[in-house]
Formats: sequence, C-alpha cells, structure tokens
Amino acid sequence: MKSGTDLAATELFAGLGDPVLESMNFLNQIAERYPEAVSFAAGRPTEAFFDVGSITRYLDRYHAYLRDERSMSPARISRALFQYGNTKGLINDLIATHLSTDEDIRADPESVVVTVGCQEAMLLVLRAFRRDERDVALAVSPTYVGLTGAARLVDMPVVPVAGGPDGIDLDVLAETIRRVRQEGRRPRLCYVMPDFANPSGLSIDVSVRRRLLDLAAAEDVLLLEDNPYGLFNDGGPRPPTLKALDRNRTVIYLGSFAKTVFPGARVGYVVADQRVATADGFSVRLADELAKVKSMVTVNTSPFTQAMIGGALLENEFSLARANRREHDLYRSNLAEVGSGLRARLERAGLSGLVQVNAPSGGFFLVVTLPVPVGNEMLEHSARTHQVIWTPMAHFYESSEPTRELRLSISTLTPQTIEQGLDRLVRMIGEQVSARVAVA
Amino acid sequence: MKSGTDLAATELFAGLGDPVLESMNFLNQIAERYPEAVSFAAGRPTEAFFDVGSITRYLDRYHAYLRDERSMSPARISRALFQYGNTKGLINDLIATHLSTDEDIRADPESVVVTVGCQEAMLLVLRAFRRDERDVALAVSPTYVGLTGAARLVDMPVVPVAGGPDGIDLDVLAETIRRVRQEGRRPRLCYVMPDFANPSGLSIDVSVRRRLLDLAAAEDVLLLEDNPYGLFNDGGPRPPTLKALDRNRTVIYLGSFAKTVFPGARVGYVVADQRVATADGFSVRLADELAKVKSMVTVNTSPFTQAMIGGALLENEFSLARANRREHDLYRSNLAEVGSGLRARLERAGLSGLVQVNAPSGGFFLVVTLPVPVGNEMLEHSARTHQVIWTPMAHFYESSEPTRELRLSISTLTPQTIEQGLDRLVRMIGEQVSARVAVA
Repeated sequence: MKSGTDLAATELFAGLGDPVLESMNFLNQIAERYPEAVSFAAGRPTEAFFDVGSITRYLDRYHAYLRDERSMSPARISRALFQYGNTKGLINDLIATHLSTDEDIRADPESVVVTVGCQEAMLLVLRAFRRDERDVALAVSPTYVGLTGAARLVDMPVVPVAGGPDGIDLDVLAETIRRVRQEGRRPRLCYVMPDFANPSGLSIDVSVRRRLLDLAAAEDVLLLEDNPYGLFNDGGPRPPTLKALDRNRTVIYLGSFAKTVFPGARVGYVVADQRVATADGFSVRLADELAKVKSMVTVNTSPFTQAMIGGALLENEFSLARANRREHDLYRSNLAEVGSGLRARLERAGLSGLVQVNAPSGGFFLVVTLPVPVGNEMLEHSARTHQVIWTPMAHFYESSEPTRELRLSISTLTPQTIEQGLDRLVRMIGEQVSARVAVA
Repeated sequence: MKSGTDLAATELFAGLGDPVLESMNFLNQIAERYPEAVSFAAGRPTEAFFDVGSITRYLDRYHAYLRDERSMSPARISRALFQYGNTKGLINDLIATHLSTDEDIRADPESVVVTVGCQEAMLLVLRAFRRDERDVALAVSPTYVGLTGAARLVDMPVVPVAGGPDGIDLDVLAETIRRVRQEGRRPRLCYVMPDFANPSGLSIDVSVRRRLLDLAAAEDVLLLEDNPYGLFNDGGPRPPTLKALDRNRTVIYLGSFAKTVFPGARVGYVVADQRVATADGFSVRLADELAKVKSMVTVNTSPFTQAMIGGALLENEFSLARANRREHDLYRSNLAEVGSGLRARLERAGLSGLVQVNAPSGGFFLVVTLPVPVGNEMLEHSARTHQVIWTPMAHFYESSEPTRELRLSISTLTPQTIEQGLDRLVRMIGEQVSARVAVA
C-alpha cells in the first residue's frame, strides 16, 4: 500500500472502480476544468427562471394549505415540518392529484413513496427486487446512468435491451427475457423511459406502449417507467404514459420534480401499487415494502423540501404543465435551433453525408453519430482545443466499447451559446472526421 | 400466491422480512394506535422550541453569508440553492468550523460528505466497506437499529460486541476481532456511540477511549463513531470524542443535526479523512469514494436543507452547544426527573430490589431491567391497558431472544407527562412482576 495511505481501493466495494461511477466523476471534472466551454453536456434544467422569492412563497402556500384545508393546529404544523415524518411522505395526496391532473394517472396516495430525488426511488425498487444473484434488471439501452449506478450498489446485473429506432424493440425484449431465463436468472423489471429518453431522445409510439404492457404482463416482468421529460414536448397532444395505460399493475412509475420544479429540492417519488402476498396469507402494498427500505436509507424525505414542492403544486393548481410554460417554450426552441443549426452547419461543411443527427420531438437530448469512434479522449480534446463539451454515448452502454455517438443536451443553452457552441462543435467534428479520412 | 396479488414476498429482498426492519414498523404502529398513551418510546427531540419563523431566518442568514462573505452573485446564489449541487455538499466549510468550535475536531472540509441525515452516512460507509461476503461490521451491543438496518441493505453481517457496563469491553472486542478473523472473515469497522449511547444511555470513559483507539489502530479496524447526543450532558466538561483524540485516521465520524437543529432538515454528515491507495499508485480521500456511492443514492443533499443548517450554524457562531441551551436544560431535567421519580416509585411499590434502573449522566435514554422477559406482547399490553409505551430492548440485539430490559426515552416529556407516565409504568411493572411471582 502506498505510504501515507490507510487502506487500499482493493479492500473497498469493487463498484467504486466501476466505469459507471467513474464516468460521472470524469464528466463532472471536465465541466469543472473547462468552465468557459460551451456545454452541451449538462442534463440540468435551465436556470433562467429560478426565483429566490419562490422558496418562501411555496413554503407559505403549503403552510396555509395545512392550516386552512387540513385544519392543522400550529403545533401540528410545526411538528409536520420540523420533526421526523412518515417514511412514505407528507405530500402524497398532492402528488396523486398532480398525477391525475397532468398525466391521467389514478394513484392511491398510499401507493406513493416520496423519495430524495428519483435516484433514491430507483435504489429502493432495485434493492427490493434483488433477492439473490439470480435477479437481474433489464434496461432499454442506451440507459440512464443513474439506473445502472443504483443497480451496482445492490449488486444487481443490468441486462441491456437494445432500444433501436423505436425506443424499444419488443422482439429483442422478448428474446432477452427468454435468454435470461434460460441462463437460470430472473428478469424482474425492465427500466424504460418512454418519453424523450435520456440519452437517446427517442420516444415510444402509443401502439408500441400497449404491446409493451401486454408483453410485460404476459412475461411477468414489471416495467419501471421513468418520466422526467414527458412534459417538454413539441406542443401537440402528449401520448399517455405506460402507467396511465396500465390496467394490471404492471408498471412501477418513477417521478421527478427536478426538471419541473427544481433539482435543489431533491424530491422525487415512486408509485408502486402492486400487492405483495406475505407468507402468512396477507397482502401488503409494494409501496410499504419500499418504505421499509427507505427507512434504512434516508428515514424520510425532508418535509421542508416536500413543502416547497407541495406549495408549487398548489400554486399551479396541480399542473406542472401549466407551471412550466416558459421552460417548455425555451426547451422547445432550443431543441429546434440546435437540430436545425447543426444540420445547416454540417451541410455547409460538407459533412452531412458522414454525420447523422437524430430528431427528437421534445426533451433535453439529441444524438449525433460520427463516422469515427467517440470517447473520453475526443471529449477532452474538444473541451481543451475547441471549448465545447458534450457527452460520449459510450457512458450509457453496459459494454465499455467506444461508440460513434455523442449526446447533446439543449436545456441550459441560450440563442448565443447555441450559435457559438455549434460553430465550435462542427469545427471539432470536421477536424476529427478529416483526420480519420486522411489516415485512412 | 394470494389472489389479487401481483408478487410474493418470497420473491423480494429477504431483508424486508428481517426483524430489524419489521421492528421499526411495529414500534411506529404501536405509537400510532395509542396516541393517548404517554410515550417513553420516541427517540425524537423535543418540540418545545420549534419555531416556524426560524426557517426563513436561517435561509436568509445563509443567503447573506453567500452574498457578503463568499461574494457570490445573485445568479450564483440561486444556482447554488436551486440547481443540482456538489455531491459532497455545500456547507462542508461551516460544518468543519462547527466541529472545531464544539468538538475540538480538526476536519478538512474536503473530508466531509454532507448526507441526507446520519442514516445515509451509515449506508455510504457500510456500502463502501462491504467488498464481499467476508466483510463484517462489528457493533457495540445493544446497537442502534439504523446501523443494523443499513447493514442489512448492503448484505453486511453485523457482529455484536457486548458493551457491558463501561459502554465497551475491550477484551471482548479484541476477542471478537480474533474470532471473526479465524472464521475467515474480515472485521472492517466497529460501530460505537461513546456518548450516551442509543439505546443503553452509557458513555465510555476517556481512558477507555484512548485504549480503544490504540486497539483499533493495532488491529487495523476502523472505528465508526456516532455522536448524536454528546452535547446533552450533565453540564460539566464533556469528554473528547474519539475523533478529537484520533491521531492515526482510525475514526470515521458520523454527525447528525437531527437532535441539535431539527430532524426535518434531514441533514447529517460523515468525516472520512482516510486516504485510499488506488491501483494505479495514487491516493484519494475516502470521503470522495463515499461521495461516489452517494451520487447513486441521493445525488446530493438538498441545498435548501443544507442552507437551513448553515444558517443555524452561522446564527449561533458555529456552536450548537450554545444554540441548544434550552434543550440541554430540558433534557437534563427530564432525565433527572425520570430517574429519580422512577426509583422513588419502585421503592414505594416494594419493587426496588427486583427492578434496576441505570443512571446515564446525559442523553435521551435510560434502561430499566425487570426480573421477567420484556417483549412486544408486554409493550402491547402496556399501551392498551396502562396507556404507557416504551421500547423493548430486544429490538437492539442481533439475537431475537427476549431480554429483561426496556428503554425509556426522556426527550419529548413534560413534568406532567413524566409524573403520569411513571405512575402508569410502575403500575404495569408491578402487575407484570407480581403475575410472574404468583405463577412461580
């Protein structure tokens, strides 16, 4: 062991050296080291409408709700805010009303567990379903790293299911379930982001959603639906979520307020209305089983942060679609500008035959495919030499092989940074492609 | 499987049926079912000084600190509060100053990870040290259930080390380490609460603390020190924490603001200044490794809740001893009243020879030993028939055998509830003891 050290990395959890956990670190470090670079990397929401005044406004609004609509005494209100609270949450009723208002999802508040961001919700679900080494999670690939990372913490393998151009390939899913079972393993859940997925930007068609539900029910595999970006569409009607279509309790629904209220609240939730048969012949809610896990992870979600989210829901009559009109317009405009601006520049640079850009109709992300491998070295070069950063798609695959894709995020850009960033990006791409062509 | 259910408990994480997770549920249910009972069960802080006005006062204070002392622009401040933040935390510097002020602990802010309550801190540490099935945690027994529960989630066995009357028995500890190694297992950490432990109420003498540090360093077992109650002593000088005495980075220190500011913030922290040797010859901070785990548990601790704690620290010039003068007096008085009131009543009832009451000099808890087994049935009877609740100590032991002890918590009582509760408790004890004596 190196002198001056106290323990060796080889004595610690092997997952700490896992590419998934390392990749978050690497990407954050690049962003920190090149603060002047235009960033197409950040998956965070816009800061354009953050308003410090909203904190006390939301808290006051929730306080008034407890006092006037729930008839709580001052002592009960201060207990609700300051004291330890119910592990399942404080604002479950308000979240259920929001889900009915914005998503046409009918959720019993008792099926909701309020979590410290959606990340904790993923961890709770994966921990609950990981019984032994035979249990595996399936995940539409490429996959959000938060899911993969949480699975690492509970030692649950993630088996990728190639998403393909439709967001999910049901034949591949059926075949994967079969293969996993043949290996003596149990596919328990399939993680899927049907709306503007991170990182692919793709959405799943309604008819495919229905067939996915049927397949999952038939195969006895639960769907773990994650929906952080659904509201940010092209302005047309939104397709129903899997949970809104779910008639057989096939879907566990993950929700986040990070993109629709603000990330700093660290409030998310899970709707788990499945019934669990106990050994002694009773049945309990899956949500209550998840709460048992939560009691040993974070005890309960801060009632202050829940109060802020509750206040935001009350102020907007439970509609986050309504609350996010400005954000919606900004993201929609940014996505259109980045897509069209990138295509125009590639055209002018004579690269349009070599470089593909996908065309999501909403969300935060689009994917660019180059004719050359795209990895961390290219990102580092891009940041240092061209002052533009983005995310190598390799970080979102289970295999560590480089891919030819990079992910662009549009959420924190302005018209100025879009123009400047795309100029730099296309210069970098041109340089990389011609270097390869010259070598070849 | 029971009809109308979707899955069987036997398909889920076996820990969900573990007595540790069930016991929390059972104890909460008793408290909910008998709201009129006098509760000696709750480990929560007093609600006597909760002040809704403190929320905005603390937030404003932290906001002014960022603006005036850290010279942050309004845009940077709102980003710090609303956006995703550093996984290790936002108020690490303020926590380090507090540790130096109140505890004489010199902590580099970079060695601090701010967590969602101390519970998350335990989970991060145990996950990081659980490499494979050979790794075990030692814990002074009886043990706080949060530690045992977190260990269950990461499949890490907890080996009890009988605490005995001195709070820890070093011979037993040395022998346990030897035995665990002989079994081919690795004792990685020993969990210990040296000040007014939950549940025993016992504290460890300074000379024993020093020898414990020496033993742990010699045996290459880290100490996981938890200190939620240290401030609430008898008014005399406080002994140094293990971390304050630590010269060899033998101690990982767990901190909580749940009892010293308020539980609803859900803010705790861990000081992990150990250096980890990496495979490629570098060394990294253990705190940074813990942050990698945290990034997949909760991403980061809510900056709003950190701001509240930060504001409380600033308002009190970093001294929570100073901030908690009223609480300190209340707990000290309650502990004395419960101890002396109980002894006097036992005396009057002719039970003082049969029933022992320990005499902690601070903290929230004391332990009563009966001449008969004390279990959940007795608690349920006590709640229903005598309207008084408390905690069977059996919940704090790895073995499921009943013990003869019960834990009393003094933190939420008033002079009135103390008198009333002790009357009921002694009536219940008298009934139980004489029933046994009659049978025998």
